[in-house]
Amino acid sequence: MAKPLRIGMIGYGFMGRAHSNGYKRVSDFFDLEYTPVLQAVAARDPAKAKEFADRWGYGRVESDWQKLVAAPDIDAIDICTPNNLHAEIAIEAAKHGKAILCEKPLSMDTSEGERMVAAIEKAGVPNMVWYNYRRIPAVTFAKQIIDSGQLGRIFHYRANFLQDWTISADLPQGGAGLWRLDAKAAGSGVTGDLLAHCIDTAIWLNGSVTDVTAMTETFVKERQHQLTGQREPVTIDDACSFLCHFQNGSLGLFESTRYARGHKALYTFEINGENMSLKWDLHDLHRLQVFDYKDAGNMRGWKSIHVTDGDHPYMDKWWVPGLAIGYEHSFVHQVADFLEAYAKKQPAHPTFRDALETQRVCDAVLLSGKSHQWVNV
Amino acid sequence: MAKPLRIGMIGYGFMGRAHSNGYKRVSDFFDLEYTPVLQAVAARDPAKAKEFADRWGYGRVESDWQKLVAAPDIDAIDICTPNNLHAEIAIEAAKHGKAILCEKPLSMDTSEGERMVAAIEKAGVPNMVWYNYRRIPAVTFAKQIIDSGQLGRIFHYRANFLQDWTISADLPQGGAGLWRLDAKAAGSGVTGDLLAHCIDTAIWLNGSVTDVTAMTETFVKERQHQLTGQREPVTIDDACSFLCHFQNGSLGLFESTRYARGHKALYTFEINGENMSLKWDLHDLHRLQVFDYKDAGNMRGWKSIHVTDGDHPYMDKWWVPGLAIGYEHSFVHQVADFLEAYAKKQPAHPTFRDALETQRVCDAVLLSGKSHQWVNV
Amino acid sequence: MAKPLRIGMIGYGFMGRAHSNGYKRVSDFFDLEYTPVLQAVAARDPAKAKEFADRWGYGRVESDWQKLVAAPDIDAIDICTPNNLHAEIAIEAAKHGKAILCEKPLSMDTSEGERMVAAIEKAGVPNMVWYNYRRIPAVTFAKQIIDSGQLGRIFHYRANFLQDWTISADLPQGGAGLWRLDAKAAGSGVTGDLLAHCIDTAIWLNGSVTDVTAMTETFVKERQHQLTGQREPVTIDDACSFLCHFQNGSLGLFESTRYARGHKALYTFEINGENMSLKWDLHDLHRLQVFDYKDAGNMRGWKSIHVTDGDHPYMDKWWVPGLAIGYEHSFVHQVADFLEAYAKKQPAHPTFRDALETQRVCDAVLLSGKSHQWVNV
Amino acid sequence: MAKPLRIGMIGYGFMGRAHSNGYKRVSDFFDLEYTPVLQAVAARDPAKAKEFADRWGYGRVESDWQKLVAAPDIDAIDICTPNNLHAEIAIEAAKHGKAILCEKPLSMDTSEGERMVAAIEKAGVPNMVWYNYRRIPAVTFAKQIIDSGQLGRIFHYRANFLQDWTISADLPQGGAGLWRLDAKAAGSGVTGDLLAHCIDTAIWLNGSVTDVTAMTETFVKERQHQLTGQREPVTIDDACSFLCHFQNGSLGLFESTRYARGHKALYTFEINGENMSLKWDLHDLHRLQVFDYKDAGNMRGWKSIHVTDGDHPYMDKWWVPGLAIGYEHSFVHQVADFLEAYAKKQPAHPTFRDALETQRVCDAVLLSGKSHQWVNV
Repeated sequence: MAKPLRIGMIGYGFMGRAHSNGYKRVSDFFDLEYTPVLQAVAARDPAKAKEFADRWGYGRVESDWQKLVAAPDIDAIDICTPNNLHAEIAIEAAKHGKAILCEKPLSMDTSEGERMVAAIEKAGVPNMVWYNYRRIPAVTFAKQIIDSGQLGRIFHYRANFLQDWTISADLPQGGAGLWRLDAKAAGSGVTGDLLAHCIDTAIWLNGSVTDVTAMTETFVKERQHQLTGQREPVTIDDACSFLCHFQNGSLGLFESTRYARGHKALYTFEINGENMSLKWDLHDLHRLQVFDYKDAGNMRGWKSIHVTDGDHPYMDKWWVPGLAIGYEHSFVHQVADFLEAYAKKQPAHPTFRDALETQRVCDAVLLSGKSHQWVNV
Repeated sequence: MAKPLRIGMIGYGFMGRAHSNGYKRVSDFFDLEYTPVLQAVAARDPAKAKEFADRWGYGRVESDWQKLVAAPDIDAIDICTPNNLHAEIAIEAAKHGKAILCEKPLSMDTSEGERMVAAIEKAGVPNMVWYNYRRIPAVTFAKQIIDSGQLGRIFHYRANFLQDWTISADLPQGGAGLWRLDAKAAGSGVTGDLLAHCIDTAIWLNGSVTDVTAMTETFVKERQHQLTGQREPVTIDDACSFLCHFQNGSLGLFESTRYARGHKALYTFEINGENMSLKWDLHDLHRLQVFDYKDAGNMRGWKSIHVTDGDHPYMDKWWVPGLAIGYEHSFVHQVADFLEAYAKKQPAHPTFRDALETQRVCDAVLLSGKSHQWVNV
Repeated sequence: MAKPLRIGMIGYGFMGRAHSNGYKRVSDFFDLEYTPVLQAVAARDPAKAKEFADRWGYGRVESDWQKLVAAPDIDAIDICTPNNLHAEIAIEAAKHGKAILCEKPLSMDTSEGERMVAAIEKAGVPNMVWYNYRRIPAVTFAKQIIDSGQLGRIFHYRANFLQDWTISADLPQGGAGLWRLDAKAAGSGVTGDLLAHCIDTAIWLNGSVTDVTAMTETFVKERQHQLTGQREPVTIDDACSFLCHFQNGSLGLFESTRYARGHKALYTFEINGENMSLKWDLHDLHRLQVFDYKDAGNMRGWKSIHVTDGDHPYMDKWWVPGLAIGYEHSFVHQVADFLEAYAKKQPAHPTFRDALETQRVCDAVLLSGKSHQWVNV
Repeated sequence: MAKPLRIGMIGYGFMGRAHSNGYKRVSDFFDLEYTPVLQAVAARDPAKAKEFADRWGYGRVESDWQKLVAAPDIDAIDICTPNNLHAEIAIEAAKHGKAILCEKPLSMDTSEGERMVAAIEKAGVPNMVWYNYRRIPAVTFAKQIIDSGQLGRIFHYRANFLQDWTISADLPQGGAGLWRLDAKAAGSGVTGDLLAHCIDTAIWLNGSVTDVTAMTETFVKERQHQLTGQREPVTIDDACSFLCHFQNGSLGLFESTRYARGHKALYTFEINGENMSLKWDLHDLHRLQVFDYKDAGNMRGWKSIHVTDGDHPYMDKWWVPGLAIGYEHSFVHQVADFLEAYAKKQPAHPTFRDALETQRVCDAVLLSGKSHQWVNV
């Protein structure tokens, strides 16, 4: 019988659902030493927390997160709150020796992230940040191919994350479902929300970023605040793009926005190596595009691999070749990997420390956006 | 609190997993009067049945399906056996007044299917056949668009289901995982396995088929039988295509094969109407291609709709626009629709009677393949 | 200096333009022993013939084709008339010892085609039929790959040619620009116009067709005739699809229609071999899709080759990699190949005899469409 | 009869062919007051010039460009030399009152370009720069749609031009066919060669660029020089990307490189407006992708318009819907537009002055690449 890992969930929003689904499903498909148990949930709104607990089968509702992180029947704390609460909760949970799984981005800024890393490393607790896109099978497969060395010298890495859901000036900011538009709760706009994903994947696939020059923009300058009812200045970045160098000498180009009409959640990346290039996007998440210069000259082209075979990452756990899985499975995979690392007492990536590097790049980007200077990471 | 619908599962193979997953997940995402309870499982191999029950959380294992269909604590029987057992089990389950969910194709042939329909209709039990592809959101969306009348007069319907997994002559036939190559267990080859899906969708979207001319082929004539160890003639159809007329005057063209190198599970359909055409395929299951003649002349083109918005079928239950779900969700949707129909005491489509029409077309196709004549359905 | 090949053109319609362009451009790009000279044009309407001659630089206009085929300053006759005149002109031109380039389809039917072949073979004149799609670089490249044997045993060949330009019942039939809707001028509808292309390519790539079963349809039963002004029955086939066997044991599936809303000129083919599959379509004519089973298992996928490199067929004559050529270039290539064969006194394919085989399949298809029986070719 | 426009061509390279083809073909397809006459060619290498003249039908070869620009039987000078000769020739040709068609980029740098503009404007001669991609039908169509105002407020413009032909360190620089790698002949690397196209289109479609921050890179630091035989430092930019603001408040992101393995000549652009977005790329040059927010909510998607209909720009001159034209036709269109403007004594765009604005942006980009500062245009 698998051993229980008792989860204390903080938050009940979109990510609370995605993580809970990951915990509930993992043992149906993966054979692991530990199995998650949905022990308790804590959240600001007790009625909503109750409803969430009932739906997902959490054993009980705690009235506040302080109680949850101190509860003796909890092994791991999952932080699904707005970003401005990550640090406080993580540091407190670390004091209680809990394993911590924190939503991305790690923190409001680098200095806060450093305090978090110090706390969890001092406490020596297992920790992980939910940069889930690493676990889309096609993305993991890209990592395997890159690590095999087949690409040769890398020249270019480019990524963007394009959305269009905040174009209307009538959309309010702040409050339930909309805290991502409120800099006080989110820290930043698209940089922490979208670019952070791109940067996490980029560092994972292509190594460290050394310096950046960025451009940020807020297209809609004022919005009604959902909580106060007042029109208030918008202080997040609606769009942010940057150029950079990687430590391996390759050039990077990143863009994110919520004003690219026609794109819902178009996260894409491409990496160009001397001998091979790879390309992926989230809208067709099962396909990895590969160009292999080793093919015979007249037979070269971009190959669209439908990453659904049994010898593709994670896919032996699911159905048969050709049959797709979806977005939510990236969380199942991350839970599985976390549990495996937990059992082996090894780090589960991305750790808080890994995520801190992404935070540093984000901060450099935001600073460059303000200073109009190249900024070293 | 939701009322329980206690499931008795027969079989533990690929479809047993897919259905079980549907039962387990539906209540996390859908608000329904009934919730499935995984009560018991029966299967030939008790050890495997036990392992399956443990993994999925079935309450107990029954030693044979006869006990299961008679058990008083079972509300619904799910038949996931090879095709040659569908009839016997369904008829027996109907006698015990159980609701019945039967894997497709309904039966080994039309006459067997007719006996099944007679039995369940006499017993008056809820019934459904698992033609799950109807519940892929993009396919259901196609149905909504067609039903709206926007296509105008229909001229053409074409579908194919292309696979390549049996090309090797070394692949044995029969036995666990390979009964689909054994006509005694499967009834037919690609016709019942693949074309049946295409025909079910076609009838649903475009109405009845009146007559067919077909071509069938068995490329590999002999294979070792997995159970006997002997080389035996292969009696299934490896490939089958047919032309047909629909009752609405449109022309149909269907093809299925397991010898189309490069296609894993490429189910595609296209329908051409006077004013609009639609196109879909299973490898990129979230996309519905639409051509709308009402667009301004120079602005016409095929539009790729990423069917992931809240106003697309079923998608309000899942994540946010742009984020994909997968193959398995079609079963969750079918469970949800079944439970809703069950609560309202309405038929859940496709019923056994619906599936019998597909069986009639399959039989006409197989007969035409042999007689080399046009055959009326 | 290149030697002249003096062209006598009959007809000034769409194909007259396409061929003339081929003749005029070939020597700018290909180094050949012969160069075409636009000597004279003959056509029914003298004013239009004059205008055509002026635009394209033909030396003179002949009042009728009889004079043209007899003219001593003409080396080659190009037949761009409606189909019902092909035979008469070709047979007469052969008598005068002219080389003959005839638009496809060769003839109104097989028996007429046989008379044509007999005439030109008796006369021993160079001859060719304008099945131009063989000379799209990606199609020629497909031929090279197939001939290399890389596909292994062939299982399937499928092709369709989908258009939508005759859906409106208000479109008249017959007369200038619309003779393709008039069976008296065209012989048949989509079978001779569209399927003939598919069949020519199929035979070229995959060998002979042995037997067929077909379905034909005329969706719009009556149309006003452009010349008589009367509503008359439509006697062409608006749509035609068929199943067939090839001599190599593979299965064929063909479809053509002018009622597939959304498709302008979508000629596509796909061939599935044991080890490799190929796919092409006319709307994206520079791309050849290739699936290679020899790729490493997890690296398999459909590769889109942009057939624009110097080592792709014909492409060394044009621009640089990545830069597209178009539809019209297939005619330039066919002229170049004809001139090269002409200089070497070798057959230029497809010859009249090659085209006669396509005619035989067309006739079998039309007969099967009427008899509702399988028909041997 | 059309009046002659007697062309004096300088250069016989890739662009000499592309332009000559444009001149020779235009009158077969377009009805214009003027028709180009290939009067004479001048180039450094007399043997090659002779060969070129013979192939394309130029009336004679001039021993040097100075004679050509002074020749009384020449109406228009076409400059197809390496970039470092543009200014000298154009200024001299202007003095002789010739119309001037100059290859892009206009000049080696802005100050040189200013002298050229001053000279041609003082002389009052017709002038044009060959930014040919404006005349790809899908690109012109994009311009028409943007000018119609349907996009609403513009938020983003992004473009890249990706190639991979200089990755090998063994490729020499300088000399015939390779002067684009030699800064002395080319002025810059990808900035003038590739980005200049992107910038020209961007300004045309989206207005002026106000300021930029750029990153340039030379991946291969030394190459053998083809003329000297010596290994010499490479001083061009192998890759260049930049961020910018447009005057209309939208954000720009541009990238070009010759080190993006897998991309032959992938020029792409995308523009995101409040109500509509457009997307195009050169590898599939006939397709314009359009997302229209005015479509019904659940029917929104990216539409792929095959820009081959008679009501698409230039396409009424060619074949029928669905049949592609290619790269070279953009030059035919540009010739046609030039001739039309010439007849009406109107400017033919892009004029030298238009091209100077592109030059200014290129210079700002190159400067920013060196200074690591934002630079105003």
